[in-house]
Amino acid sequence: MVTGNDARIILENVRLQKPLIHNITNYVVMNYTANALLACGASPVMAHAYNEVGEMTGIANALVLNIGTLENEWIHSMIIAAGTAHKKGIPVILDPVGAGATSLRTHTAIKILNTGTISVIRGNASEVLALADNNAQTKGVDALHSVTDAIEVATMIADKYSAIVAITGPTDIVTDGKQIVKVHNGHKLLRMVTGTGCTATALIGAFSAVDNDYLKATACALAYFGVAGELAAKKAIAPGSFMIKLIDELYAITPSELEQYANIENV
Amino acid sequence: MVTGNDARIILENVRLQKPLIHNITNYVVMNYTANALLACGASPVMAHAYNEVGEMTGIANALVLNIGTLENEWIHSMIIAAGTAHKKGIPVILDPVGAGATSLRTHTAIKILNTGTISVIRGNASEVLALADNNAQTKGVDALHSVTDAIEVATMIADKYSAIVAITGPTDIVTDGKQIVKVHNGHKLLRMVTGTGCTATALIGAFSAVDNDYLKATACALAYFGVAGELAAKKAIAPGSFMIKLIDELYAITPSELEQYANIENV
Amino acid sequence: MVTGNDARIILENVRLQKPLIHNITNYVVMNYTANALLACGASPVMAHAYNEVGEMTGIANALVLNIGTLENEWIHSMIIAAGTAHKKGIPVILDPVGAGATSLRTHTAIKILNTGTISVIRGNASEVLALADNNAQTKGVDALHSVTDAIEVATMIADKYSAIVAITGPTDIVTDGKQIVKVHNGHKLLRMVTGTGCTATALIGAFSAVDNDYLKATACALAYFGVAGELAAKKAIAPGSFMIKLIDELYAITPSELEQYANIENV
Repeated sequence: MVTGNDARIILENVRLQKPLIHNITNYVVMNYTANALLACGASPVMAHAYNEVGEMTGIANALVLNIGTLENEWIHSMIIAAGTAHKKGIPVILDPVGAGATSLRTHTAIKILNTGTISVIRGNASEVLALADNNAQTKGVDALHSVTDAIEVATMIADKYSAIVAITGPTDIVTDGKQIVKVHNGHKLLRMVTGTGCTATALIGAFSAVDNDYLKATACALAYFGVAGELAAKKAIAPGSFMIKLIDELYAITPSELEQYANIENV
Repeated sequence: MVTGNDARIILENVRLQKPLIHNITNYVVMNYTANALLACGASPVMAHAYNEVGEMTGIANALVLNIGTLENEWIHSMIIAAGTAHKKGIPVILDPVGAGATSLRTHTAIKILNTGTISVIRGNASEVLALADNNAQTKGVDALHSVTDAIEVATMIADKYSAIVAITGPTDIVTDGKQIVKVHNGHKLLRMVTGTGCTATALIGAFSAVDNDYLKATACALAYFGVAGELAAKKAIAPGSFMIKLIDELYAITPSELEQYANIENV
Repeated sequence: MVTGNDARIILENVRLQKPLIHNITNYVVMNYTANALLACGASPVMAHAYNEVGEMTGIANALVLNIGTLENEWIHSMIIAAGTAHKKGIPVILDPVGAGATSLRTHTAIKILNTGTISVIRGNASEVLALADNNAQTKGVDALHSVTDAIEVATMIADKYSAIVAITGPTDIVTDGKQIVKVHNGHKLLRMVTGTGCTATALIGAFSAVDNDYLKATACALAYFGVAGELAAKKAIAPGSFMIKLIDELYAITPSELEQYANIENV
């Protein structure tokens, strides 16, 4: 059972605790996700060199791994950092960007998952489906499947890797393999800005850093991001202005507004 | 003969077909060009690891290569991807950022061109001049030469590499070595935002992906980008606001507005 | 003795001379700092490959080194570029992002400083303190210490490395080890945008490129950036809009407005 009240409490805690979120993420979204994390109340740091990631994760409160512009050396760093995070008991969030589109991405996502260190996976349906080793096809980073498919896929992957799985789309699905939560917040302009999926993943990192019920933290982070999108879309009708207002709203929204607007359904 | 009507049709087709544009581009502009491609109606993907670029190009509709923050490993990836693109018959657009400024950039641009896979080259006059192996000097990425020079240089390089050449500046020149098209759209604030040249190159990728008359696609993409710049400058007078409004206008402009405002001259 | 009149003159000279600033900086801030440099009137270039940095620095008017997303190969490039800059007598500005947070960052910053090529160091108090080989602890890139501490640390590091040291925070401290200047401009929203410290460092590069009194150039650049922050905060109350208005103000502010608003105290 996840509620708007949970979202309110977690957002309050992010702003009070200012968790340090260590991101090993893609070049395209580094700036935007760092600004989103700051706006949210967290403290972002980006570091990817294999000879510093362990130390950096060592002072962090959550680790976010994103394979959006993968390089071979980074895979090694991700695995080192995930190991450190797992040992110290902080959440590790994986965004398998483009899994299904190339073998490198699919195999890397699975390789990271097989370390057994991942707490939460967030992707679109086709990316998450690719983790099942099916013959999923991804066209770039667009989602290709229905909500019903998404629930089935999310449950399968959550079971397979003993992790929380979030499939985002017009309706977001979050599951631990048993409990299923739908988040109905969001706006179609979010799909017109690059890296909004990656930003959702980073925010899951911030929320999970302050609440170790990762199913709840994930659903609440997605509600928060979706509500910010809805509010931003009231002030901006095109994607350039929208992406700026989205950062503004992530910063401006109060915990009680979040509680009021969060549209979380416990299936 | 390229007209505003062509621009209208191509923009309509980009929005209908949503071509996947594979970019191997520089770190500075990745986010901005991805957002510009989304705003235009295309679907961007960034990937540069040598062991996935072939596969990624294999599902793409155009390939954009940009040497703005070059690394040695990336050169190898660009050549692999260009080979794949050439084999499957999709356009390859090269942006020789900073050619003439350092030997690495000049030699890399020429090395890529000598693979015979490049469909369109877009740069400023000094960058394109550097491809002629003259003793061109580039101060950063600023253009140094006149329109008359630009036409001469563009024609020479188009002949040399059997490619469409676009030299952008206050007036844009596009040529296949025989036909010459001038595009008079644009605004001086475009020079105050980093990566606008790179963004023009990415948009040429999107337009070329849906029309295999690359001379036409290139001129129309430049008219589209220039018109968006003109419209953005009506709403913003400083570069921060301007770069955001530019994304808004790329998204908001209708094909018939583009036809109306495109200022294309067939010399 | 540094005054608002100095700031006016240096800003005028940046806009007249349009110095080329070579940045070897972190992925997160590349786009934003390039836009800030353009807005200021300078010409930015980013290049980091070891086999082109020497040549690029060779045509530049200042070099900015930033260790925010360090990789081992980049360290080598930074040292080559710094050597070239030192030989030709242009300023080299070092931003030791995250020094104290990991050994790699601390050791790299000290290694670069020990080349004896650095003209100006800019960081927050904990980053600069880490350069003293104390057991400084950095939590991400947040400053942890008081203004009095900052002056003591800045003076110590300036002496140790014979460089200008700037510690930025609510009050900025600039010193050559003897003379101490405080800059009181700025706004708390600057801390809510990623890379504002890095941007200040890049602007110090632009100002130092046109005035070889680096203490003066550094203090004036910080006043300029702080004034732009104050003006931006009058137009934007949340960090997304603020970061865009900040670029606008860097562009729009006139030299005489800068003189008027600069709040520089010679201790």
